Amino acid sequence: MKPWEANFRSVTPYVPGEQPRPDGGRLIKLNTNENPYPPCPGVRRRLQDLDTDLLRRYPDPSASELTEAIAGYHGVSADRVFVGVGSDDVLGMAFLTFFNSPKPILFPDVTYSFYPVWAELFGIPCERVPLDEAWAIRPGDYMRENGGIVFPNPNAPTGLLMEKESVESIIRSCRESVVIVDEAYIDFAGDGASVCGLCDRYENLLVVRTLSKSYSLAGARIGYAIGSPSLIRALKNVKESYNSYTMNAVSISVGAEAVRDVRYLKETVQAVVRTRERAKERLREMGFTFPDSEANFLFAHHTEVPAAEIYQALRREHIYVRHFDGPRVSDYLRISVGTDEEMEMLYASLETFFSERQKIWTAGGCGRSF
Amino acid sequence: MKPWEANFRSVTPYVPGEQPRPDGGRLIKLNTNENPYPPCPGVRRRLQDLDTDLLRRYPDPSASELTEAIAGYHGVSADRVFVGVGSDDVLGMAFLTFFNSPKPILFPDVTYSFYPVWAELFGIPCERVPLDEAWAIRPGDYMRENGGIVFPNPNAPTGLLMEKESVESIIRSCRESVVIVDEAYIDFAGDGASVCGLCDRYENLLVVRTLSKSYSLAGARIGYAIGSPSLIRALKNVKESYNSYTMNAVSISVGAEAVRDVRYLKETVQAVVRTRERAKERLREMGFTFPDSEANFLFAHHTEVPAAEIYQALRREHIYVRHFDGPRVSDYLRISVGTDEEMEMLYASLETFFSERQKIWTAGGCGRSF
Repeated sequence: MKPWEANFRSVTPYVPGEQPRPDGGRLIKLNTNENPYPPCPGVRRRLQDLDTDLLRRYPDPSASELTEAIAGYHGVSADRVFVGVGSDDVLGMAFLTFFNSPKPILFPDVTYSFYPVWAELFGIPCERVPLDEAWAIRPGDYMRENGGIVFPNPNAPTGLLMEKESVESIIRSCRESVVIVDEAYIDFAGDGASVCGLCDRYENLLVVRTLSKSYSLAGARIGYAIGSPSLIRALKNVKESYNSYTMNAVSISVGAEAVRDVRYLKETVQAVVRTRERAKERLREMGFTFPDSEANFLFAHHTEVPAAEIYQALRREHIYVRHFDGPRVSDYLRISVGTDEEMEMLYASLETFFSERQKIWTAGGCGRSF
Repeated sequence: MKPWEANFRSVTPYVPGEQPRPDGGRLIKLNTNENPYPPCPGVRRRLQDLDTDLLRRYPDPSASELTEAIAGYHGVSADRVFVGVGSDDVLGMAFLTFFNSPKPILFPDVTYSFYPVWAELFGIPCERVPLDEAWAIRPGDYMRENGGIVFPNPNAPTGLLMEKESVESIIRSCRESVVIVDEAYIDFAGDGASVCGLCDRYENLLVVRTLSKSYSLAGARIGYAIGSPSLIRALKNVKESYNSYTMNAVSISVGAEAVRDVRYLKETVQAVVRTRERAKERLREMGFTFPDSEANFLFAHHTEVPAAEIYQALRREHIYVRHFDGPRVSDYLRISVGTDEEMEMLYASLETFFSERQKIWTAGGCGRSF
């Protein structure tokens, strides 16, 4: 080891899902919860009409156009909105800003795998609270001393939504620290599922959102938080101590356009939800079980065939789904909801794989696979 | 104070230069060192032809197209290149990754004002090393025990370039920590000024660059670092522990285009340098003094009129320059080099202001201003 390497910060980096590039051939990407539909039509117009002077100059450091569009969508004032480079940036900044207690922060044992990574990076003590046997968060488990609370709703990778009343019961009981509700997938959970409206009542509640899923803008890197002016001011101060100009000019422009097109959002979200409900039926028929997802993915376990084997079989067919290693989850696949056409190809590949596998086992006299 | 506010991270945020938006009227913006020329022509083409599928999907987490274009430009392998959301992101990540020693890091007392902000944010002990009377860095001052060294070359806001041999003498003497040379303005300092080529020889040298100045892409937020594979790996690990997808798809695309257009870079840089040299003459004639800048700005002091007064007078004429508060610098203005036309308007405004001011003082019998 070189002498200066002794002072390197040591971390265990998060492993993002594969981002295979289509090489001209067919590729079905159901592994990173992207939206299968394009961004709203106004996005293309913005790109085509963009004045390159916007690129020459530093962007507006407060990203006002985008911030105001988001504030308008939620019916709140702009001082309740914080924007960042994807919800990962917003969440990372929030960990750094709010979680400085010697008491551990709490999050589920099976959840977004970036939470423990940020905790390690910033030296935040943390405790993983087990989900129950049906993969649900038990609100009572969070009603104790803590340095902060964070969970996604719907949770990932389970897709399970916690009722608003239960979320509120956690927030109500937590009077000493900040509660972060990560609503990355909330648009797929139906009207009235969000707790954004509670930010008025609970000054220690931060709700985090993203334009990567429901708005089809993962490539533009836009996330945001809604919270009390005191939380938002603290976040902005820390953000401005790290990088004054994080949101690039193009993303500010296309993000504002997308947020304003509420009709397109609703249409594409409904299309994803319809496909998801159909996927539940089809996959159940093939022997899969899963929590009843209200997100844009299913967390699926097969009653007979190991997840790793299905994952590899699909990959050979250029169909990418997500397979996590780790306790409790290694026999599950997280399957993002694509277009109907993509899902039909998934079902067809699965059916072929299961039936050929059955033939081989039967021919070999093994009967069952394990 | 609410109970949870006790755990907020407390910081003193960096104050960026104003980003006034043109309201239809004339506005001359010489306050944030932007390039007065547009990005290369290929950038507009990329925007117009952009497949919005690039926005729908997560971007390539390693930003390969951009990383490879940068590696190609510098004639190094891609494992020696790290990209970030502006050089602020690259520098912030580098502070977090490399400066974890109990010994203080060293940087000049008059320099980029973000260095002390990052040090505070991450709890890094630091020591500000005074520049000499002529605003120069004295290499000998850095040849002592330290937890790291960072300085811009050319320095900001002085514009002074340190000779390559002097920079190397600092790096050579520093065998226990990482040395960061922040070359944000190096393209304006002529060929052969950069120490990028020394990264081969010194594994603890990190050179940071940006596309915000010489490439006219401040709005796209692109910065990068060149260093040994060991430094770059450590940076990537920390970055991937914070946010897997920082560089958005549009910036990857337009950045790669810009880096490949070397001819356009040289042409626009030469135009800026010609205007800068002419500005030195004109401002000197008006009673300004300044270090002999090799960047795209001048750090100018007027022998008779206080900087704050000139700053306000120009602002009334919708000409924005930068005025810093703080020891040693408060009687200086940092004037970015604009187009020849913009600079002529600056000179004309200054001449009018000086001559009217003289008249008032003479009429009032005061003779001199102070």
